[in-house]
Amino acid sequence: MSKPATPADPNCPFLRACRCEPADHTPIWIMRQAGRYLPEYREIRSKVSFLEMCRRPELAAEVTLQPIRRLGVDAAILFADILLVVEPMGAGLEFSAGTGPRILRPVRDGRAVDALQAVEVSASLGYVFEAARLVRAGLPRQIPLIGFAGAPFTVASYMIEGGASRDYVHTKSLMYRDSGAWHALMERISTVLIDYLNGQIDAGAQAVQLFDSWVGALSPGDYREFVQPHSARIIAGLRPGVPVIHFGTGAATLLELMRDAGGDVIGLDWRIELADGWRRLGNGVGVQGNLDPTVLYSDPPEIRRRAKQVLDQAGGRPGHIFNLGHGILPTVPVDHAIALVDAVHEMSSR
Amino acid sequence: MSKPATPADPNCPFLRACRCEPADHTPIWIMRQAGRYLPEYREIRSKVSFLEMCRRPELAAEVTLQPIRRLGVDAAILFADILLVVEPMGAGLEFSAGTGPRILRPVRDGRAVDALQAVEVSASLGYVFEAARLVRAGLPRQIPLIGFAGAPFTVASYMIEGGASRDYVHTKSLMYRDSGAWHALMERISTVLIDYLNGQIDAGAQAVQLFDSWVGALSPGDYREFVQPHSARIIAGLRPGVPVIHFGTGAATLLELMRDAGGDVIGLDWRIELADGWRRLGNGVGVQGNLDPTVLYSDPPEIRRRAKQVLDQAGGRPGHIFNLGHGILPTVPVDHAIALVDAVHEMSSR
Repeated sequence: MSKPATPADPNCPFLRACRCEPADHTPIWIMRQAGRYLPEYREIRSKVSFLEMCRRPELAAEVTLQPIRRLGVDAAILFADILLVVEPMGAGLEFSAGTGPRILRPVRDGRAVDALQAVEVSASLGYVFEAARLVRAGLPRQIPLIGFAGAPFTVASYMIEGGASRDYVHTKSLMYRDSGAWHALMERISTVLIDYLNGQIDAGAQAVQLFDSWVGALSPGDYREFVQPHSARIIAGLRPGVPVIHFGTGAATLLELMRDAGGDVIGLDWRIELADGWRRLGNGVGVQGNLDPTVLYSDPPEIRRRAKQVLDQAGGRPGHIFNLGHGILPTVPVDHAIALVDAVHEMSSR
Repeated sequence: MSKPATPADPNCPFLRACRCEPADHTPIWIMRQAGRYLPEYREIRSKVSFLEMCRRPELAAEVTLQPIRRLGVDAAILFADILLVVEPMGAGLEFSAGTGPRILRPVRDGRAVDALQAVEVSASLGYVFEAARLVRAGLPRQIPLIGFAGAPFTVASYMIEGGASRDYVHTKSLMYRDSGAWHALMERISTVLIDYLNGQIDAGAQAVQLFDSWVGALSPGDYREFVQPHSARIIAGLRPGVPVIHFGTGAATLLELMRDAGGDVIGLDWRIELADGWRRLGNGVGVQGNLDPTVLYSDPPEIRRRAKQVLDQAGGRPGHIFNLGHGILPTVPVDHAIALVDAVHEMSSR
C-alpha cells in the first residue's frame, strides 16, 4: 500500500466541466494519451509485455504520468486495458504482437456463461487499484485521475467473439437465439465492472469513463433491449458524486439512449457535429470530444484551425471537455499532440 | 455481342418503389445476394478465382441469376466488384484468399495521381457490360437489373490505403495535407465511374446503386468538403430517367448530405431506425433497408418478426425497398434468406 492520496481540486477545469460549470479554459485530455506515440512509453514497452505493463503498478503509474508531463493535459487516465476483467472471470486473455488481444476460451452459450467465475476484484485486479494510488500520489492537485472500464457490451462481445470482429456474428447470434444467456453474461460482467470501477474510485480516481468502443455495431432497438439496462445498472451502482463519462464509438444514433442509461458527460466521436450531438442530448449533460484523431497527421496550423471548429461548435457552453473522437493513433508526432493541447488552452482561455 | 435485351417492365414493384409509387408488395433484394452463402455460387467459385468470375461474362451472369431463381427477389444485381475500375487506372489489383483485395501500387501523393491512366471503359471493362447484357437476356420482364459501382470516396480510400483500413490514416492525410491531389484523384475516379455506370445502363441495367461502403469514417464537414461534390457530379452525369440508389455504411450522420448529393433512393443501414432516417430525408426520396444482416442467423420466426418491424417502420409508404442494412454474410443458411424474402412478400402484400 502506498501513502494516502492527495485528492484533486474539485474546482479544477476538468471536474468543473463534468458538472457543467464554467471554467477558466476548456479542459482537454486525449484518449490513449498514455500510449505508443510517446517515445518514453515505447522505451518502457520495449522491455516488458503489454500485460506486464498493466500488471506492474509502478510501470502503469509511470506511463499514466508521462502525458501529464509531456502534453500538459488537464486530466490523467489510468493506463490499463478494458479486457483485464476478463481473465479473473476465467475466459483467458492473451496479447500477442500484431493480432491484438485474444480470448482463449470464448463464451458462446449458456453453459459457458454459467462456468464463469465470480470475481473478488481486490484480489485479482488489486494491481490496477495500486497503480491508481501511485498515480494519484504523483499528480498535482489540479490534475484529476480518470478511472475507466469497458462497457458491458464491448467486454461481452470480446468474450464471445474471442477477438476483434467486423460483423459480431457470434455476439448477435447469442442475443437473438438465447437472450437468457445473453442477459446472464451481461449481468455477470456488470457486477464485476461495478466493483472494479468503485475500486478505482476508492483508490483515487475522481471521475470514470465507461468505454463502449464497439456499441456502434448495434441498432437502436437492440441497444435498448440488450445493452441499456446493464450499462444503466453499472452507472447507478457507482460511488455517488463521482462524474461518469459515457462514450461509444460510431454511436450517433444511440446518443439519447446512452444518455438515458447514464453519464454526466457523453463522449462524441467525430462522425457527428458536436453542436448537433449536444443539442440532441439536451441540457444538464456535458459532452466530450470530438476532433477526428487523424487530424493530428496534418500540420499545427491545420490542427489549430480544426480545434477551433470544435470549440466553436461548443460555443463556450459550460460542460465541454475537449478530446479526440477516439484514441490517439500510435504514429502521430508528439509535437502535433502538444500543438493541439496548447491551441485548445489558448483559444479557450476566458 | 449477345442478343438485344428485353427491357424490364417499368411498372414492376422495384422500379415503382424507386419512383415512390405504390406497388402491390414491398420489393426486396439483398446486397451480395450473388454470393458465398449460396452453394451453387461456391460450386462455381471453387473452380475459378474471384477475379476470373468477374471477368468471364457467362460466369458473372450465371451467379447474378442464381439468387433470382433461388430466393425470388424482386431485382437482380450484377455480380462484379467495386474495385474492378482500379486496374485499368493502373494501380494494380489482386485478390488473395483470406486477406481480401489489395492495391499493388497505392496512390498516396499528387505524383501518383498524375500517373494514373485515363480509362476507355468499353475496352477495359467491357466484360462487365457483356455480363449485364447476358443477365438482361436471361431475366424475366418483371425483374430489373441493378448496375452498381463503388462511390468515389470508397474507391479512392482503397486506392490510397492499398487494402482494408480501420483508421484511414493515409486517406485523410492526403485530404488534409494536399487537398489539390485529393480532389484530382476524386475527379479522375469520378470520370471513370460515370462512364462505367452509363456503360452498365446502356447494356441493360434499369437502375444503379452507388455504394459508399467506407464513407462512415468521415465527419459531416469532411464529407461536405471532400466527397459530396464528386458523388454529386457522378449522379448528375448518369443517363436521365434511370433511378439511382445511394448507399453508405455507418452513415447515419451523413444522410441529408448524401441525399443532397443525389439519389432517388437512399440506402440505410440498421444503425438508424428506418422511420427516423426517412423522416430526416423528407418527401420525394425513397429508402432502402434496413434489417441487420446478422438477424439471418436467428430462426425463421424471429426473422419474420424483425422483418415486420422494418415494414412497420416504413408504414406502407410508397418508396420503400426492403434490403439488409449491409451485405448478406457468407455463412448465413440459404433457408433463412428464403424465409426473409417470403415473409416480406407475404406481409407487405396489398
